[in-house]
Amino acid sequence: MDKRTLVLKFGGSSVATVQKIVAIAERIITVAANNRCVVVVSAMGDDTDILLDSASTLHPERYPREYDMLLATGEQKTIALLSMALQEKGALARSLTGWQARIKTTAQHRKARIIDIDTKTIKDCWKRDEIPIIAGFQGIHAENITTLGRGGSDLTAVALAAAIYADECQIFTDVDGIYSADPRIVAEAVKISEMNYIAMLELASLGAQVLHNRAVELACKMNIPLRVLSSFIEGDGTLVTHNIKNTPTISGITVEKQQNVINVLYKQDSIHHHNCWKLLEEHNISLSTVHWSRYQDSFLLSFATSENQAKQIIQAIETTIGKDLEHIDSHRGQARISIVGVGIQSSEYVFSAAHHWLMNHDIPILLSTSSESRFSFHVNEKSANFIAQELHRLFHLQ
Amino acid sequence: MDKRTLVLKFGGSSVATVQKIVAIAERIITVAANNRCVVVVSAMGDDTDILLDSASTLHPERYPREYDMLLATGEQKTIALLSMALQEKGALARSLTGWQARIKTTAQHRKARIIDIDTKTIKDCWKRDEIPIIAGFQGIHAENITTLGRGGSDLTAVALAAAIYADECQIFTDVDGIYSADPRIVAEAVKISEMNYIAMLELASLGAQVLHNRAVELACKMNIPLRVLSSFIEGDGTLVTHNIKNTPTISGITVEKQQNVINVLYKQDSIHHHNCWKLLEEHNISLSTVHWSRYQDSFLLSFATSENQAKQIIQAIETTIGKDLEHIDSHRGQARISIVGVGIQSSEYVFSAAHHWLMNHDIPILLSTSSESRFSFHVNEKSANFIAQELHRLFHLQ
Repeated sequence: MDKRTLVLKFGGSSVATVQKIVAIAERIITVAANNRCVVVVSAMGDDTDILLDSASTLHPERYPREYDMLLATGEQKTIALLSMALQEKGALARSLTGWQARIKTTAQHRKARIIDIDTKTIKDCWKRDEIPIIAGFQGIHAENITTLGRGGSDLTAVALAAAIYADECQIFTDVDGIYSADPRIVAEAVKISEMNYIAMLELASLGAQVLHNRAVELACKMNIPLRVLSSFIEGDGTLVTHNIKNTPTISGITVEKQQNVINVLYKQDSIHHHNCWKLLEEHNISLSTVHWSRYQDSFLLSFATSENQAKQIIQAIETTIGKDLEHIDSHRGQARISIVGVGIQSSEYVFSAAHHWLMNHDIPILLSTSSESRFSFHVNEKSANFIAQELHRLFHLQ
Repeated sequence: MDKRTLVLKFGGSSVATVQKIVAIAERIITVAANNRCVVVVSAMGDDTDILLDSASTLHPERYPREYDMLLATGEQKTIALLSMALQEKGALARSLTGWQARIKTTAQHRKARIIDIDTKTIKDCWKRDEIPIIAGFQGIHAENITTLGRGGSDLTAVALAAAIYADECQIFTDVDGIYSADPRIVAEAVKISEMNYIAMLELASLGAQVLHNRAVELACKMNIPLRVLSSFIEGDGTLVTHNIKNTPTISGITVEKQQNVINVLYKQDSIHHHNCWKLLEEHNISLSTVHWSRYQDSFLLSFATSENQAKQIIQAIETTIGKDLEHIDSHRGQARISIVGVGIQSSEYVFSAAHHWLMNHDIPILLSTSSESRFSFHVNEKSANFIAQELHRLFHLQ
């Protein structure tokens, strides 16, 4: 059998202690015995937070170049330790920082984008039978160390996979795959063996914290098969590809709790539109919940926010719109339930079946939004688990 | 007045906390107002030890490349934080790792030597009015991060000073200069305002822990004036140069306690000489205490060691020499007192005065060694402080 080329990425919780690093070294050696590998790692556990805490009085966010200089030490520590652990077990390994691995990025500190990877260093490692151990999250622009922002190590892994034409980019995490629902809510939830990027993207942005959606987008664009696996439990995990054939119509059901639904009615005025958009953006409101509609001479804006930022955003809207504000209400204790599946929009069956069930059970919906591959609605948080369980059964997800 | 070009080096205890980093930022800004500066820093306080502790189960010493990769994060953290602190106070600053500052070294990990510094990056900083903040102790060889070994940050500072033709290399430390004796032992000890490299070298290797002797050697060779200053107390410190005119005949008196003097008598045999040299080297015995002499058909080897390694080295000698060993004795509780000064050897007065005083006070000497600029002798530890105080007075050092 030909060797496959793989990128193996281990996140912060998989390398949180030296003991865990030793355990994943074992895992890497097993995989590397039959495959050509590149390993990408994050900073250990809370190391990034600890570094930022140490700098907190110096306002690191004001000095993005120095911020990146500081944070990049986190992954550099992990690669050194993992490389030692591999060599302790008799493997050949070589740690590489972002610049040593020639990961070139844009100039934007704290949220740089990878623009090029020269794979010479990696190929030199392979020639010497060394496993390259690469610091995720970091790169270089004109001799400055840059970092990629949230989910950066996943992005490094996917970009490397594209650069070396990897057969698969394997993301090792705390969970052993993507599930049809949160097993803590829906006991019958099952692991999905294969799914489509689009469904994964919806799940990623709906709080399945396993993969960052920027990384899924990049994998989708670059056509890199992604596999989500557990760092410590054997198994095939979930494979994410373009393939739609093996993707079920409905991939899963997600539940996001502690939501607050806000309705704002105000006199039509384009400056108010503009200001409201700005406010929503500033407060990082997920645009997937935002709904605008015209109501006589007024506009109705509905959206969901987390409970702890509701009060602040309501005040901001009242200040901004001033006397043109006609009505504002806020509903605490909501949960957003989403049914996710590729092409769900064109499958009338899903919508009608879900609506029918909700109606039959007298469940009031406060806000409902949908996309090509998602149907979401807000219900009272108290009934959310029951609804997720019943819909999971209704759509035969188990 | 023309601006002077200065290297300012701050050691680990000067940057041990963010508060201290903020304090030295203030100091740097004052100096940089009238001078063109490059700043070199070490890792914060115990950070290097903490990094090594974290790796201890992985035997980092076996993997020198990864060892350097790990340790280099220490200074990288300091440069980021110091650069933030300077910018918080309104200064322009830019952190530079060893490779960014283009400090090229030999390939030897853990004890690399600086072979070249391309000063372009530093000059670019100056053009933008930025203070370059450079990670000490680290460099690069063929894209590998290297470290310089003990006293490495001092070496970085001196090498940088040579590369940028600095007027002075200022070493900021815990003490406000070099003293004629340890003030805890000799109350009348005075700060020396100016001294010669050679005297400083003797003092450095005699336990005045302020400057590492490799750095003094390099400064001497490169003709870089060194200044030892306190990080937190104002003052001119001690200037170390080639100048001999302002250097007193006797610079100072040092006391090293907890010494053990060992005498070994063995049958003449060149293989024993060779093996003994190897043993002394392996145990890092200061060669300045080693004395060999022929005694009839035998050889007498005398040397001093620290008390805690005496037993081990005696056993090793017994094993090595075997049946040719004629006698071995060991004297605990010794102290080495050294009188240091350039040209002391040619100043008969010092030797005769010291010997005369010792004789008059009935003080037995166990071992005495000397160099061009040092006269040392071992006495019972209990009388060491008294002797140092008296000789300090005798030679009018206060």
